[in-house]
Amino acid sequence: MRLGDLPTPALVVDAGVFDHNLATMSTTRPGATLRPHVKAHKCTSLAARQVAMGHHTFTCATPREVVGMINAGVGTEVLLANETLDQSRLRYMSDAQRRSGATVIVAVDSTETIDAAASSGITDVLVDVNVGLPRCGCAPDAATGLAQHARSLGMVVRGVMGYEGHLMAVPDRESQLAKVLESMTTLVDTFDRVVEALDHDPRCTIVSAGGTGTFDLYDTEHPVLSRVNEVQAGSYALMDTHYGALDLPFEQALFVVGTLISSTGDQGSPGSWSVIDVGLKSLGMDHGNPNIDGASVWFCSDEHTTLAFDDRARPTLGSRVLVRPAHVDPTVALHEAMYLVDDVNLGADASVLETWPVDLRGW
Amino acid sequence: MRLGDLPTPALVVDAGVFDHNLATMSTTRPGATLRPHVKAHKCTSLAARQVAMGHHTFTCATPREVVGMINAGVGTEVLLANETLDQSRLRYMSDAQRRSGATVIVAVDSTETIDAAASSGITDVLVDVNVGLPRCGCAPDAATGLAQHARSLGMVVRGVMGYEGHLMAVPDRESQLAKVLESMTTLVDTFDRVVEALDHDPRCTIVSAGGTGTFDLYDTEHPVLSRVNEVQAGSYALMDTHYGALDLPFEQALFVVGTLISSTGDQGSPGSWSVIDVGLKSLGMDHGNPNIDGASVWFCSDEHTTLAFDDRARPTLGSRVLVRPAHVDPTVALHEAMYLVDDVNLGADASVLETWPVDLRGW
Repeated sequence: MRLGDLPTPALVVDAGVFDHNLATMSTTRPGATLRPHVKAHKCTSLAARQVAMGHHTFTCATPREVVGMINAGVGTEVLLANETLDQSRLRYMSDAQRRSGATVIVAVDSTETIDAAASSGITDVLVDVNVGLPRCGCAPDAATGLAQHARSLGMVVRGVMGYEGHLMAVPDRESQLAKVLESMTTLVDTFDRVVEALDHDPRCTIVSAGGTGTFDLYDTEHPVLSRVNEVQAGSYALMDTHYGALDLPFEQALFVVGTLISSTGDQGSPGSWSVIDVGLKSLGMDHGNPNIDGASVWFCSDEHTTLAFDDRARPTLGSRVLVRPAHVDPTVALHEAMYLVDDVNLGADASVLETWPVDLRGW
Repeated sequence: MRLGDLPTPALVVDAGVFDHNLATMSTTRPGATLRPHVKAHKCTSLAARQVAMGHHTFTCATPREVVGMINAGVGTEVLLANETLDQSRLRYMSDAQRRSGATVIVAVDSTETIDAAASSGITDVLVDVNVGLPRCGCAPDAATGLAQHARSLGMVVRGVMGYEGHLMAVPDRESQLAKVLESMTTLVDTFDRVVEALDHDPRCTIVSAGGTGTFDLYDTEHPVLSRVNEVQAGSYALMDTHYGALDLPFEQALFVVGTLISSTGDQGSPGSWSVIDVGLKSLGMDHGNPNIDGASVWFCSDEHTTLAFDDRARPTLGSRVLVRPAHVDPTVALHEAMYLVDDVNLGADASVLETWPVDLRGW
């Protein structure tokens, strides 16, 4: 099968770029120093490639991602880096742990989330600490109390996490580093206090943070930053134009392939435009419009993108057009499958090597 | 089952508001004068309610919507108001027509789209005319030639369509009416020329246009506007905050129910916020952030919305929170089901009356 045979819109992954991204990340963060985030791709076939690179611990955002990974036998330890009070879904995860050899760790940031997890059979928790992003995560001062509460219910406190998501896209790396250091000083200090409050429980070892935009800042020589012992990056594998605007060593591997279905006017004339069958139902739009090489995107509708081609000759109707999504995570979540191709630069002639179901959709 | 029992995020529809919206539309555009657009809800159970209100002809944006409606036995005539060159999906639709009593009409705007439809067994087409929105649709002057080309291939030209999508959200109704009249003058004039070019073929009767934002502008006394004999509105049934900002007689019936999973700081203090489990993977984000009554939305992440409650007491963790999506179509497309409830104002105590699978997702 060739790229040109795929019904469009179709999600395609360039094999060469994808391999480059995985290798680059694994060199800097080998093995368990990376806990790849599954929410960026929602795909056990892709996660299996991350396992092949030596990563066996994973991060998830939803119970379905956690259980889907376990059911597929991909990874040995899965962290739900998210809070939930839903006992039915907490049991869904603890049941999956019981019937498999895998470990489930759940993030908690309140007595309520701890109580819900404990009464649903969850055994391992991570205390989620707010390190500056106004989202989930307890106040640093509350972490020791929560850890002791979890222990009092018989749970194992595996450590802390603190996601500095507000710092992922700081363009100036020096200023980013200074801010990350500030956040991680809070996290490491909180970890030390939790360890002490738990009488130096040897099972409390995890200091989890970071993402694609900060993956290489946890300098192994730095007294504070080196204590972050795992990074929760996910976008690095496929990338998007938002992360692509930063100075990172990862390249865009993910494209939405569309078909040119309509053209109006003579190319180059003011009233000239083209339309492809890729719209906001096949693109995550929260980071704005996608990019198309050699064309200007005018706007996206539900099932269409209106665009004008630049200097190159306008393709004929039926031609395939490659679209670069602005945000990888919500784009992938809209598709049922992604197709691994040998080289997207070959356009319609690229060979489809594998079909990867996006099997971890929903929540 | 009560609303509070639904796993969140969950899509809920208020039965009273929904019934009001359907009744209001059917009063102004009864029977075949409305061709409800399925892309707004992607749900055959909801479409069956539209059939119960007397509408039997439907508009779709994707082949899956067309075939899904036919397979569910909902509606008697389905229009694909979209261009496609994909012969496999065109055959998928012509096969569905052949094995059912339903009629499939496909929009065309080029010789290429006509040729693809004809060679795939499609029998009925509508000439899609550009009336001002830079998207699909042929130049008005090209319509007669396309109609004659379709006829020469043995197809039935059922009429014309022209979607004035750029005029749906013009806030001033007088100025909107003037612009719609201009677009519809083009469409009606084109229709008359097509009818003449087809030697007054009595099967060429359809003049299809409009949407929720213009549904009541086709005054039955007006010599031009009254000739638009069907309106392709879809959003009116469920509504969203984007359409809600206009002065329309439809109310928001669709909400995403979330659960409060984390709160930080004392309510009202500057460093105080809350987090619900509704994020940009369960909300269409192209029209911006959603609204929450009695709260300010700070930002949406993949699986979260960070917000601050106004004066009312902050709900306890685990409470349900109703979110009003900014754009209905892409929001629905992210969910597997929607739940019809008796009264969303009852909050967690609202009764779930029916579960409607969102069974027409994908393309």
